[in-house]
Amino acid sequence: MTTVNDREDTRTTATEANRSPLTTEEIFRAHEGGKLGVQVTSPLSTPRDLSIAYTPGVAQVSRAIAADESLSAQYTWTRNLVAVVSDGSAVLGLGDIGPRASLPVMEGKSALFKSFAGLDSIPLVLDTGDVDEVVETLVRLRPSFGAVNLEDVSAPRCFELERRLIEALDCPVMHDDQHGTAVVALAALRNACRVAGRELSALRVVISGAGAAGVACAEILHTAGVGEIVVTDSRGVIHQGRDGLTPIKEELAGYTNPRGVTGGIGDALEGADVLLGVSAGQIPEELIAGMAPDPIVFALSNPDPEVHPDVARRYAKVVATGRSDFPNQINNVLAFPGIFRGALQAGARMISDRMKVAAAEAIAEVAADELGADHIVPSPLDPRVAPEVTEAVAAAAREDGVASA
Amino acid sequence: MTTVNDREDTRTTATEANRSPLTTEEIFRAHEGGKLGVQVTSPLSTPRDLSIAYTPGVAQVSRAIAADESLSAQYTWTRNLVAVVSDGSAVLGLGDIGPRASLPVMEGKSALFKSFAGLDSIPLVLDTGDVDEVVETLVRLRPSFGAVNLEDVSAPRCFELERRLIEALDCPVMHDDQHGTAVVALAALRNACRVAGRELSALRVVISGAGAAGVACAEILHTAGVGEIVVTDSRGVIHQGRDGLTPIKEELAGYTNPRGVTGGIGDALEGADVLLGVSAGQIPEELIAGMAPDPIVFALSNPDPEVHPDVARRYAKVVATGRSDFPNQINNVLAFPGIFRGALQAGARMISDRMKVAAAEAIAEVAADELGADHIVPSPLDPRVAPEVTEAVAAAAREDGVASA
Repeated sequence: MTTVNDREDTRTTATEANRSPLTTEEIFRAHEGGKLGVQVTSPLSTPRDLSIAYTPGVAQVSRAIAADESLSAQYTWTRNLVAVVSDGSAVLGLGDIGPRASLPVMEGKSALFKSFAGLDSIPLVLDTGDVDEVVETLVRLRPSFGAVNLEDVSAPRCFELERRLIEALDCPVMHDDQHGTAVVALAALRNACRVAGRELSALRVVISGAGAAGVACAEILHTAGVGEIVVTDSRGVIHQGRDGLTPIKEELAGYTNPRGVTGGIGDALEGADVLLGVSAGQIPEELIAGMAPDPIVFALSNPDPEVHPDVARRYAKVVATGRSDFPNQINNVLAFPGIFRGALQAGARMISDRMKVAAAEAIAEVAADELGADHIVPSPLDPRVAPEVTEAVAAAAREDGVASA
Repeated sequence: MTTVNDREDTRTTATEANRSPLTTEEIFRAHEGGKLGVQVTSPLSTPRDLSIAYTPGVAQVSRAIAADESLSAQYTWTRNLVAVVSDGSAVLGLGDIGPRASLPVMEGKSALFKSFAGLDSIPLVLDTGDVDEVVETLVRLRPSFGAVNLEDVSAPRCFELERRLIEALDCPVMHDDQHGTAVVALAALRNACRVAGRELSALRVVISGAGAAGVACAEILHTAGVGEIVVTDSRGVIHQGRDGLTPIKEELAGYTNPRGVTGGIGDALEGADVLLGVSAGQIPEELIAGMAPDPIVFALSNPDPEVHPDVARRYAKVVATGRSDFPNQINNVLAFPGIFRGALQAGARMISDRMKVAAAEAIAEVAADELGADHIVPSPLDPRVAPEVTEAVAAAAREDGVASA
């Protein structure tokens, strides 16, 4: 009797433990001493082990790499190693909290790389936000890693920084806040179209927000052949005639908004099929009501979606958010582990548009089995995702001619 | 019968495996894919784990560090993290083979840190040898690590680089090729004195070689109170009257060679008690014969000692080398794991002279139990060493007022 009660108690506790709110104490306890460690993959217990892994044995390996630098990938951990790089200037919803305070987030990112794709990574947080200095630093460190995941760098600096790093480094570089989000949003949009019986090429999409994620979403949707894209920022619709556009918005204006819509977000949403919210702003219910019938609403702002999913559902056929407590969570972790693993596996010198689109297609396919209005993307913990994305990205790298392996 | 034979064969193979020469194949196999990996110390298997280690939980930790940067050591892996930094300019006996080719050695060093002291470390190999640029790079990366082990940087640049890094960084910095060797040499010399019935303060020591190790050995022996030190380089004895001394040799001339010896290594060794060889040169037998009776000879050059130990033993009371196949191996691994662990444990802002001397004393004490002419230092694999060195170094840091924990 006691035994049965104990078991029941344990079961209850376990269930509740997964649902009860996180406590400050358990959070800090989990972060005590950091979340990463180094492991040794070659044993060092005997004198012979030492002679092989260190002197004199290691000299043979070093000499071989000195004679042929391409052997470095084979005989060092760099082949499987991502540098997770940040200056701490745009961390989560916390803003510019600096490199030290950003480090727990970068360690978390490294933990995700390892847990989801078996990739090693080292968080490198930089006490400079100057684009020239960050580029210079990573160029000097280039022999130490195999790829760069840029993280939590503020817009518009992040655009220039990513472009400059891609030019300067002969390895995969990706700003995840831009392209991770964009890839998963495209995956979700593909499946939302299937559910809603629509075609990407016929869609009218409004992107609310022209920060890191907004710009990358516009790019990938354009690449994927979406019919019409209109982007809005805090000053309203971005169009070619608008004064004072930054270079990146100038570029956006060049390939979006073909009908030359002007005005505010309401003007853009009038009759639109899709709202893709990646801003921190709120969007009133009546603007959702003014969209085309049965629209698709992705309200990805965290923790407060641009429009509450319950409100959006009054009008929309498919609703997605960035939150784990509603259906259809648009979570970068579906994308970045497999993208980097695939790129490294293929020995890719960069991450091309085609590789990103291939990642989106692979993510969408994993969810295709159980497709439904509340299941347009896989769960972030679905173990099938990273391997599928890896394969698709590696194959796309080879097709694109950027692979070396 | 077959079974017994099989067993015997296996036993023979196992025994021989520990003694047979290393094969190229087994060396390259052990280095395939590198020797390090990252491990996740906080689980990531459930949605709740994700919420704690990454968003939204991690935001609480980041916010706490943003408010009080000193919490960074407690809630990130930096408290236990050494950056193993090299430009690949003086790697083992291979010389300037560059950063990529040096990486297997740095990974080996990281593996030693983990195996001997449980310290995490990341190898950072730099595609620049410019002192200003290396300092600038590490200053920018400062929030990413807890200490810097400088490795395989050529002399005389290594002296300026280490000095500049110590000034620029508020954390332990040590060039192991200098001080690791010096600490173990001092430990060995203390015990050699016990065996030979001599006093450090009455010794006449000749150091052959004024590179990284030679200069550091002179410094630590001077600090430890050795009676007379004379240093020689390829041009002979270093003395105040010699033309064209580099700044570092000028400094050496200031506190060594009180009798103003001039000439070559033979002039220096005449009547000397100790030869400490840390050069690549050979020293003829007749010069050893000209030393004081029952001298102490440390011939640390690798793989070819300055004088073969069998030859040295014809004259010397105690002989040590850098090799594992002779008694008394002077191996840095006795020092650096515990030095860095002790410094980090004490939250030391630097590694002081007293901390280095304390490390030497701790190493010497571990060997004191079984002291003998062929046992003046512990085996590199002796598990007692790193914990003893750690304690001694942390205590010295506190006594020296450079500790914060």
